[in-house]
Amino acid sequence: MRKILVIGIGAGNPDHLTVQAVKALQTVDVFFVLDKGSVKQELVDLRSSILEAHVTRPYRWVEGRDPDRDRNPADYVATIDAWRRARADVCLSLLSELGPDEVGAFLVWGDPSLYDSTLAILDDLLARGSEFSVEVIPGVTSVAALTAGHRVALNQVGKPVQITTGRRLAAGWPSDVDDVAVMLDAKYSFEGVDPDTWIYWGAYLGMPDEILISGRVGEVAAEIRSVREEARARKGWIMDTYLLRRDSPASP
Amino acid sequence: MRKILVIGIGAGNPDHLTVQAVKALQTVDVFFVLDKGSVKQELVDLRSSILEAHVTRPYRWVEGRDPDRDRNPADYVATIDAWRRARADVCLSLLSELGPDEVGAFLVWGDPSLYDSTLAILDDLLARGSEFSVEVIPGVTSVAALTAGHRVALNQVGKPVQITTGRRLAAGWPSDVDDVAVMLDAKYSFEGVDPDTWIYWGAYLGMPDEILISGRVGEVAAEIRSVREEARARKGWIMDTYLLRRDSPASP
Ligand SMILES: C[S@@+](CC[C@H](N)C(=O)[O-])C[C@H]1O[C@@H](n2cnc3c(N)ncnc32)[C@H](O)[C@@H]1O
Ligand SMILES: C[S@@+](CC[C@H](N)C(=O)[O-])C[C@H]1O[C@@H](n2cnc3c(N)ncnc32)[C@H](O)[C@@H]1O
Repeated sequence: MRKILVIGIGAGNPDHLTVQAVKALQTVDVFFVLDKGSVKQELVDLRSSILEAHVTRPYRWVEGRDPDRDRNPADYVATIDAWRRARADVCLSLLSELGPDEVGAFLVWGDPSLYDSTLAILDDLLARGSEFSVEVIPGVTSVAALTAGHRVALNQVGKPVQITTGRRLAAGWPSDVDDVAVMLDAKYSFEGVDPDTWIYWGAYLGMPDEILISGRVGEVAAEIRSVREEARARKGWIMDTYLLRRDSPASP
Repeated sequence: MRKILVIGIGAGNPDHLTVQAVKALQTVDVFFVLDKGSVKQELVDLRSSILEAHVTRPYRWVEGRDPDRDRNPADYVATIDAWRRARADVCLSLLSELGPDEVGAFLVWGDPSLYDSTLAILDDLLARGSEFSVEVIPGVTSVAALTAGHRVALNQVGKPVQITTGRRLAAGWPSDVDDVAVMLDAKYSFEGVDPDTWIYWGAYLGMPDEILISGRVGEVAAEIRSVREEARARKGWIMDTYLLRRDSPASP
């Protein structure tokens, strides 16, 4: 039976890789890569350097072209679903490269469970009749990299935390939580929250260019916007995430 | 300046340790341990085996007695606060074992940001005038171990997810989310949710005794209760966590 590993590689620092992931990498015959036409070279390099550092046995490397996706769709879920289907078609042709008893692998940013579609794509392929087993290797999320950088807890004592998207936050502060971690926000949605809210913001977490800014939204929002715009212009891309905390922390 | 490392060691599998954590372990002069009178021997062994496997230079090991805590307090937050203060007193005496330029470390289960008080204790000590720097090494959470075991995503496409406690879930399904990850639940709070809800439950995640059960709450709740009670009786302790998903997944 063919086996597909879905390996979380952590959120930017190659040393986020777990020992379990390192061991798993050593069993892989074929690495599958789904890339955009224009991938951030730095992220491609990161992946290559992980393989160089940790894989000594021979392997194959198979790339597919990731179909484009409307970033501002009217119907978010339907658009994502269609895009996923197109992606599954590409993946099916990738998987055809895998021999009967071989091990294939997808390297997934952060942890595979968080805002990543690899598992859904594989479920799609299984539902369409492909035959393979799936094993998931958990990884360090960008949320954990964020809280580590700021040396703060994700949740307040005994309290819940919500992880959400910029798009959702823009629609209003979620009910029943004082702590909200936000991913996939290209639109500064934090500018809409109560200015007394504490924000822990981080970009390029775990990477040499890591930037951390924290403070009350009312005091640091403008700084975050200008730092983010400057960094994105300089590097050509940015990945950032942040934690909003409604009660002011005892010691900020 | 003294340095304290707060190192996430992952959630049960010693191979959850990251390369960053392995490197950090090698810089530590003193490992600090806060233990209950009766610690689960298996967890003590896990910590020891991590050090044996990864630390070759000499180190000291300093243990403190973790003050007891009321598990069912009338006022949860106040009780936790008092317990934290008592814990800080113990930690202060632990830290006195650290020389001026030495590196100390706390090994923290999972990731240090999630339902763990180490960072809050250190903040307490800093606020009381202790002098040291803090560095946090992120780790794989038990939530990531859970979703990896079940090979499921934590969130549905573009949707938020809440991470909460059994105590909170018992008070009712949180607003604005369809996906809820629950930790610290000794009371089967999932038995109170809509029986159509999907549950992905896991105990001893990442460990040799890992148990995974999934299905609709109405169909598997009784099984989870009996498996959990049997396992806890047999081993003398249990750690479990689960994900509740309100919309039925396309392919369970
Ligand atoms: C498609 S999601 C993938 C998340 C990933 N699976 C994880 O576990 O972190 C991408 C989002 O994660 C966040 N992110 C990932 N890596 C990051 C990093 N190194 N620094 C800051 N944010 C990051 C950003 O919010 C970005 O928009
Ligand atoms: C005090 S919290 C610490 C969480 C930890 N910091 C993390 O990142 O996972 C302990 C709770 O985590 C969950 N947990 C931790 N390790 C686990 C494991 N190996 N299997 C199942 N649940 C686990 C359980 O819900 C337990 O009650």
